[in-house]
Amino acid sequence: MIRYQPPIADIAFALEHVVGYPEIANLPGFEHADLDTVVELIEQCGEFMAEVVAPTNQSGDSEGARRQPDGSVMTPTGFTEAYHQYVEAGWGSVPLPEEFGGGGFPRTVGLIIQEMMTSANMAFALCPLLTQGAIEALLHYGDEDQKKRYLPRMVSGEWTGTMNLTEPQAGSDVGALTTRAVPRPDGSYALTGQKIFITFGDHDMAEQIVHLVLARTPGAPAGTKGISCFLVPKFLVNDDGSLGERNGVHTLSLEHKMGIHGAPTCVLSYEDATGYLLGGENLGMRIMFVMMNSARLSVGMQGLAVAERAYQQSLAYAQERRQGLAIGATGVDSAIIEFPDVRRMLLTQRSSLAALRYLMLLDASYVDRSTNDPDPAARARANEIVGILTPICKSFGSDLGNELTSLALQVHGGMGYIEETGAAQHLRDVRIAAIYEGTNGIQAADLVGRKLGVRGGASVRELLATMREISAELAGAGPEFDTIREELGRQFDALEQATEWMLRTGQTDPNAVLAGSTPYLRMWGLCTGGWLLARAAVAAPATGDTALADSQLVLARFWAEQVLPQCTGLLGAAIAGTRDLFALDAHQLAGQASPVRR
Amino acid sequence: MIRYQPPIADIAFALEHVVGYPEIANLPGFEHADLDTVVELIEQCGEFMAEVVAPTNQSGDSEGARRQPDGSVMTPTGFTEAYHQYVEAGWGSVPLPEEFGGGGFPRTVGLIIQEMMTSANMAFALCPLLTQGAIEALLHYGDEDQKKRYLPRMVSGEWTGTMNLTEPQAGSDVGALTTRAVPRPDGSYALTGQKIFITFGDHDMAEQIVHLVLARTPGAPAGTKGISCFLVPKFLVNDDGSLGERNGVHTLSLEHKMGIHGAPTCVLSYEDATGYLLGGENLGMRIMFVMMNSARLSVGMQGLAVAERAYQQSLAYAQERRQGLAIGATGVDSAIIEFPDVRRMLLTQRSSLAALRYLMLLDASYVDRSTNDPDPAARARANEIVGILTPICKSFGSDLGNELTSLALQVHGGMGYIEETGAAQHLRDVRIAAIYEGTNGIQAADLVGRKLGVRGGASVRELLATMREISAELAGAGPEFDTIREELGRQFDALEQATEWMLRTGQTDPNAVLAGSTPYLRMWGLCTGGWLLARAAVAAPATGDTALADSQLVLARFWAEQVLPQCTGLLGAAIAGTRDLFALDAHQLAGQASPVRR
Repeated sequence: MIRYQPPIADIAFALEHVVGYPEIANLPGFEHADLDTVVELIEQCGEFMAEVVAPTNQSGDSEGARRQPDGSVMTPTGFTEAYHQYVEAGWGSVPLPEEFGGGGFPRTVGLIIQEMMTSANMAFALCPLLTQGAIEALLHYGDEDQKKRYLPRMVSGEWTGTMNLTEPQAGSDVGALTTRAVPRPDGSYALTGQKIFITFGDHDMAEQIVHLVLARTPGAPAGTKGISCFLVPKFLVNDDGSLGERNGVHTLSLEHKMGIHGAPTCVLSYEDATGYLLGGENLGMRIMFVMMNSARLSVGMQGLAVAERAYQQSLAYAQERRQGLAIGATGVDSAIIEFPDVRRMLLTQRSSLAALRYLMLLDASYVDRSTNDPDPAARARANEIVGILTPICKSFGSDLGNELTSLALQVHGGMGYIEETGAAQHLRDVRIAAIYEGTNGIQAADLVGRKLGVRGGASVRELLATMREISAELAGAGPEFDTIREELGRQFDALEQATEWMLRTGQTDPNAVLAGSTPYLRMWGLCTGGWLLARAAVAAPATGDTALADSQLVLARFWAEQVLPQCTGLLGAAIAGTRDLFALDAHQLAGQASPVRR
Repeated sequence: MIRYQPPIADIAFALEHVVGYPEIANLPGFEHADLDTVVELIEQCGEFMAEVVAPTNQSGDSEGARRQPDGSVMTPTGFTEAYHQYVEAGWGSVPLPEEFGGGGFPRTVGLIIQEMMTSANMAFALCPLLTQGAIEALLHYGDEDQKKRYLPRMVSGEWTGTMNLTEPQAGSDVGALTTRAVPRPDGSYALTGQKIFITFGDHDMAEQIVHLVLARTPGAPAGTKGISCFLVPKFLVNDDGSLGERNGVHTLSLEHKMGIHGAPTCVLSYEDATGYLLGGENLGMRIMFVMMNSARLSVGMQGLAVAERAYQQSLAYAQERRQGLAIGATGVDSAIIEFPDVRRMLLTQRSSLAALRYLMLLDASYVDRSTNDPDPAARARANEIVGILTPICKSFGSDLGNELTSLALQVHGGMGYIEETGAAQHLRDVRIAAIYEGTNGIQAADLVGRKLGVRGGASVRELLATMREISAELAGAGPEFDTIREELGRQFDALEQATEWMLRTGQTDPNAVLAGSTPYLRMWGLCTGGWLLARAAVAAPATGDTALADSQLVLARFWAEQVLPQCTGLLGAAIAGTRDLFALDAHQLAGQASPVRR
């Protein structure tokens, strides 16, 4: 197992030259977060993640989290120590408000910390990720007492948080949940019900866990309209801030999962547990989306982060492993990196990682604009762009996460299938990212159902127009950029064609739009990736670093010529409508049409 | 866990109407294997696999094979009993020569048995698969005594076989192996060395294991030219056929793998083990290819078989699981099969499985023609077609196996990630198929390096011309076949363009051809799949079964319009050459270009 190398140079270049971070640092409130400060910070953070967290990854997978006979949950060896050091160093608090002890850095910086922590150990990194979602819900909807009582120690990381949405009969359809919350005379509520898939629902890394729990109050409307959100601490908190009695929430069991074994995924039972209403009754869905939207970008980032770690390992293996003789080579054996097909696997990984990183950081930068730009119109526009980019980041990031970790495994040949090599773990771990925080199908439905129609389609058309501006830049950059320009133009045309079809068709046949939503979302991923790689290639020569400039040109050209053309290949599926999808009945789908020979 | 349903109707239709099985049954030697007999046989066989073998799949995965303290290997509970019933029923012997107790059925029928056995339990099915490879080597290269001594009980399945190729430093490059075979005065050889990745290298399902082992004799030429193949039985065999003393081959350890946990993957140590030369010295590579070529088609079939099982499970789940309300639906909840994006995942699986099954069975039917056609020219041509189709079957089959099992998992949402659901096992199990028996990259190199150039390209051009004949049939079949015809024409053009580029470029720049080999192979998979789906759609109306005919039309059209266009999307990658692949040095690949800000 090679050491994880935080990709500081890649990140620093992306911040300065691709996603316009200097403009973010100029926004009011982010003055202290200038680029130099940020690069220094992420260097230190990367060092921490590589030294302290990364070594727990493989052992955490083989050991797994365990539920003890007494019902408590133990994380794998080393997690508790690493987490305490993480809290002490304060990495979790960097992007959180200074008012509650945070560093007040932009979300963009927070996302970079998440990338590196997830590369180091995805299972471990889930605990801070869930905590952050709970913090954001509290920041937006907590009352003064709740904020004062819980936020400082959640921001520091001393206390962790969870999101309790899912119940056995209520997965993607959150509105079907049945956990009850009955008001008590003292203003608190008594919660009773069972929640499943609760990540870090219990563990031994922190003394306190703050659960945010969706439940129904008596007489609440049916479906999503009647859902409220409650804060349910593992231990009640006394007025002096000390921990009081144990609350009525208990871990019934842990799931046996394909991956992220180090992260306890709990079945939690709430029995007359004391909860405190957040925001007000029936605001649960709104609060959930506050937690979710932030988490969706983070989950897309998981795809990138795990694939980055897997890539590093496959690159090292391809340089070490000697096998056979490449064409034109002399000597005994060639390193397998000399074989063109292995190069293809490496270049596909490298270019996809760059595209994803630019896309994720761009989305995060718009999150920061949406909160801190002094111009309300700019904030509103940034919010629209976040709305479009977030489902793309989540789905494209996690889908590529699966595909790239599988390529990294493939580079290892037979060794990749052996668990001790570590390549298989990355594939097993990242597989969940396409599922949780809203399946990738839900993301695609969100894109075509909620985001495309904003301002009658003007929002998405404006983004496409912005992307098209790269054409002139490429034309001015030199003839070596010609094929990039031509291919981007062709693929943007296909994306535009699909977009106009979606906007037109959505008015009369929403099912047809949903039918093409997944291939359509991938077209967006490919095109935004190609756009940002091109932007990087155009910007790179100004750095004066010719190795970097050459590298960015190659990545952009490889993507444009060899990856991006998948986009037109998806056009047919995006605009085919529902006919063939619904043409077969259950018998035909099962292949039970009566065979001829009877 | 739902019961495995052997896809008898699909297979029977494929045999009669898509791959021309009746012609195979007319070949000399196969007269007893007429279609009716075969369909009855596979019905019984399917029943056996569903009843006896399939129930061992999930428990075999969680229990795994284990090495005992005494060095012996135990398979999971139920494997031994199921295997004894398998031997008793004689399923393994069906496609093997009658001379040694086999049923003398075509390879096509043997492949169908393998499909169903692999769907039932891939780990279990590996033991007969390896045995079959060893049998074929013995049939081709064994002397009379060897055949008589070993074959009858290997054909019956009482004894099993293995293939011992890989050593730690010799994976894809078999020529690097160092196991030594020193001649003894009695004509036998003493083998010493270590072999890894030996599937069912030891186990408790049979009393005897016949290892075929590649090794070097003293003074043998370097590389692949100096490799010989030896038969090394676990127990020496006395002249009366009884088992004698234990031979010097022992299991050092079992690998911990991502999947196929029920199949012991052994590190075998040969210490002065008694071996018998097969064929003659330095024929090892030729014998290996006899074992391999048969196994490659079988490994492609594994992709289909595991994906079929996963599909059945996801289809059942999509019908049971109720969640939310589909557009236009009324009532409380819709089954998720009513959502268009879930339908897309199901249709993608169903159409891909049909395409793969047609492709695999077509390849197998040409294997049968290559052995049993009385016309030498027809045999030679069949052999060429097998040469082209086999790497496509292996790579496209196993790649789609990975993609489709991942889709099946995705249909399950969060439940898919929980091991008890069983969806994750399919993905973990099938992942090896893209690696072993020659990685998929090796298959692509074989296609462009060895198969394309046969008869100066005439062989492959003739196959393309045969595929193009479907166009006239589609034109005569009615207007509902129009888009299939148009899309196939467009994609065949792309495939032809890539093929001509490969043939031209291969003469001067073999690395450029290798650079595009993987996307090029996938273009072949997509086009042959589309071709055979179209053939099925054109043939289906003649059955008089309208449900079947409708179904085949929809599958062919869905593939042509929504899957096949990936092909043009791959053209750029297929013909891009090596430039960008080799443009980045190790530092640039690692992202270590010096960051700007220093």
